Formats: sequence, C-alpha cells, structure tokens
Amino acid sequence: MGELIIWTYDWVPEGPRGFVRDLRLRWACEEAGLAYEVRTVPFEGRGADHFARQPFGQVPFLSDGPLEIFESGAGLLHLARKSEALMPRDPAGEAETLQWTIAALNSIEMVSVPWWFLKISGEPDNKLTGWLGQRLDHVEAVLREREWLAAGRFTVADLLMADVLRVPDVRAFGERPASEAYVARITARPAFRKARAEQVAGFDAADAARAG
Amino acid sequence: MGELIIWTYDWVPEGPRGFVRDLRLRWACEEAGLAYEVRTVPFEGRGADHFARQPFGQVPFLSDGPLEIFESGAGLLHLARKSEALMPRDPAGEAETLQWTIAALNSIEMVSVPWWFLKISGEPDNKLTGWLGQRLDHVEAVLREREWLAAGRFTVADLLMADVLRVPDVRAFGERPASEAYVARITARPAFRKARAEQVAGFDAADAARAG
Repeated sequence: MGELIIWTYDWVPEGPRGFVRDLRLRWACEEAGLAYEVRTVPFEGRGADHFARQPFGQVPFLSDGPLEIFESGAGLLHLARKSEALMPRDPAGEAETLQWTIAALNSIEMVSVPWWFLKISGEPDNKLTGWLGQRLDHVEAVLREREWLAAGRFTVADLLMADVLRVPDVRAFGERPASEAYVARITARPAFRKARAEQVAGFDAADAARAG
Repeated sequence: MGELIIWTYDWVPEGPRGFVRDLRLRWACEEAGLAYEVRTVPFEGRGADHFARQPFGQVPFLSDGPLEIFESGAGLLHLARKSEALMPRDPAGEAETLQWTIAALNSIEMVSVPWWFLKISGEPDNKLTGWLGQRLDHVEAVLREREWLAAGRFTVADLLMADVLRVPDVRAFGERPASEAYVARITARPAFRKARAEQVAGFDAADAARAG
C-alpha cells in the first residue's frame, strides 16, 4: 500500500480541539508505528469537493495510496489490518476486537453522542439520560473484571472505547471507578498524548495564522 | 470454521417482530448461502448467563464454532469475511464496503435510533429531528447518483443501510424518492424476504406455544 494521509479540517473552534476524530487515526498510526502525514480541508465553506470525499461533510478521511476511506471507525479497522499492534491475528482475538470496536460505535456512542447533543442544546436532563446510564453501567461491569476489552491486551477497541468515554460530559456522568481508571490508563499512553498534542498544536497554529 | 448459530430471543412483543437484529445475520447468511441455525435465549428474566454473552443484554450474537461475536454490525463484518457475496475481495471494494457499513451504524443509526426513541417516548418533534433530516438528505444525495453504496454491486453495506432506513418511522421521515426506491429494491431481495418471514414465524410460533 501507499502512503497514509489523514485528512482533517484546517481549523476548528477551541471547544473541539483535542477531540476531532482525526485524533483516532493519528493515535492508531502512532500505536502501530505506521508513517503518516496529516493534511487539511477547509472547515468553512465545505463544498462539493468535500462531500465527494465524505458524504456527511465531516472529517476525518484516510488516504492509503489509491484508496480513500471515510468514517473514523472504518479507518481504524482498515489500519488494524496493517498492524498486529492494533488487532491480534488469531480468529478469537480478531473477533473480540471487532465486536468491541463496533460496540464502542453502536452501543455506546449511539447513545452518548445524541445525549451530549441534547445536553449542549439546553436539555441536560433529557430522555436519553437513563439509557446512557445503563449502557455505561454495562461497560463498567465489564471493566471491573478486566483491564482490556478484547484479547487480554490493548487493541484498537480500547483506543476507540477510551476515546468515546473520555468526552468530558460522558466521563463526568456518574461515578464509575473502573471506567475512570480505564480512561486514565489508556489516555496516559504516549501514542495518545502525542496524537492529541499534535492535533491541538495544529489547530492552535491555524489560529495564529488567521490572526497574523 | 464450525457451524454458524444465530442467537435471538425466544419471544418478543408484536411491535419489533420483523425488526429484531438477528434478521441482519439471517439475511447475510441467506445472501451468502451459508448454512446456519437459529437458537434462542429467554427474552424475559435475562440473567448473568445472557450478560456474559452479550454485555448490554441484547441480541443477536453469533456462534461460529468456538468463536462467539456480539453486535450485529460485527457479526455482519465477520460473515462478510467468509463470502464474496457480501463483500468484494479487492482492496478498493473492501474499503468502500467497510466505510459504508460503519456509516450505516455510526452516521445514520447513531441519529435515527435515538430520534426514534425520543419519538416513541412522546417527543415526535425533538432536537434530533433536524440532525436526522440532514443525515438522511446526505444519503439521498448519494443514492440519487448510484444504485448501490459500495463497489458498484450489492454488499453487506446495502444490507445494513437498507435495514436502518426501512424502520417505518425513518422511512416516513420526509420525501426521499431515491432512498425509498433503494429500500424497496433491497427489501424485495429473496434473501431478505426469507429471513424476515422466518423471524416473524418464529416469534408467532412462540405466541402459540405460550397460549397453548
């Protein structure tokens, strides 16, 4: 395969810095020791060009030589096929990693993101609150029993679940000590810290360029 | 690999019949010509046994010989590795199938399911309505231009997206002719019709057994 390029916005407001989902792909490449480059598309005035590459007008997307892949979850599973650091190669380990990766996207984020959206839209106590609490309780029960979600080791499923759970409003949603320890442990990884720092520095530099 | 077993509930109320997500796995097996068996776990009184196999207390899960996989999206991607009928084998076709499978789960269902939940909780006009409309408009724009989401042919991404879009309240959400034609075309496939009929017949039989 060719060169890996992670595409993100050229600028975002301060709030989402450190949380834009190109971070997931940067982090995965750092964990796997895969060389990559970050390039940008305009945040403002997204046009047909952007929608042709990401039909929902979002970022990130990933170029891998001639291939282009949108959806951060798909990008992560694509990268996981390149490196055992992200997903074990035995069938059981692979199946566990796949199921927990999808669980982060479709059992947790499917509730946590809309809940958060309602919260910031002025409905902190909304009808998704009870459902989110249940889902987070189920993850807590799993994390009380083990250190990693899949295959007894760090995988891309932990990367994604920790990224979903580390959102400040989600992290502050009730007391779940095993989940909190998990998020703290996983976001202490050097690959995460590097990916996060570089994303924030890129957006901060864009501010400076705008001001200058 | 061993025998495929799709696990679902032994009974559900009438409303969800034809929509319980074991249908996705039955449908995929039918498309691929993979032999499978359906077995059940209790709908009522889900206990530690159930949570050990599906940590969120849901169905389906899939047994593949010694492997067990929960999350219907993960089950679909696992089955897609077994049959080219579900996912092409060239890198570009595989990447497109993967990205649209994840898009169905994390760009559409992440909005449509919570929106639907708010709707049935007595908030038909809720703060997710505008967001859902935008997401469905983006899919409509894609489906106006092509028959299939990925790789110029039917894939597991179409199976999943059509299953997400066919939910009656979602299907009735505004006028989107390309999406409507897509759902009608894909749910006319014999594999879908067989999977749906067998799911409904199974739950109907459980009613009869209860009454008898």
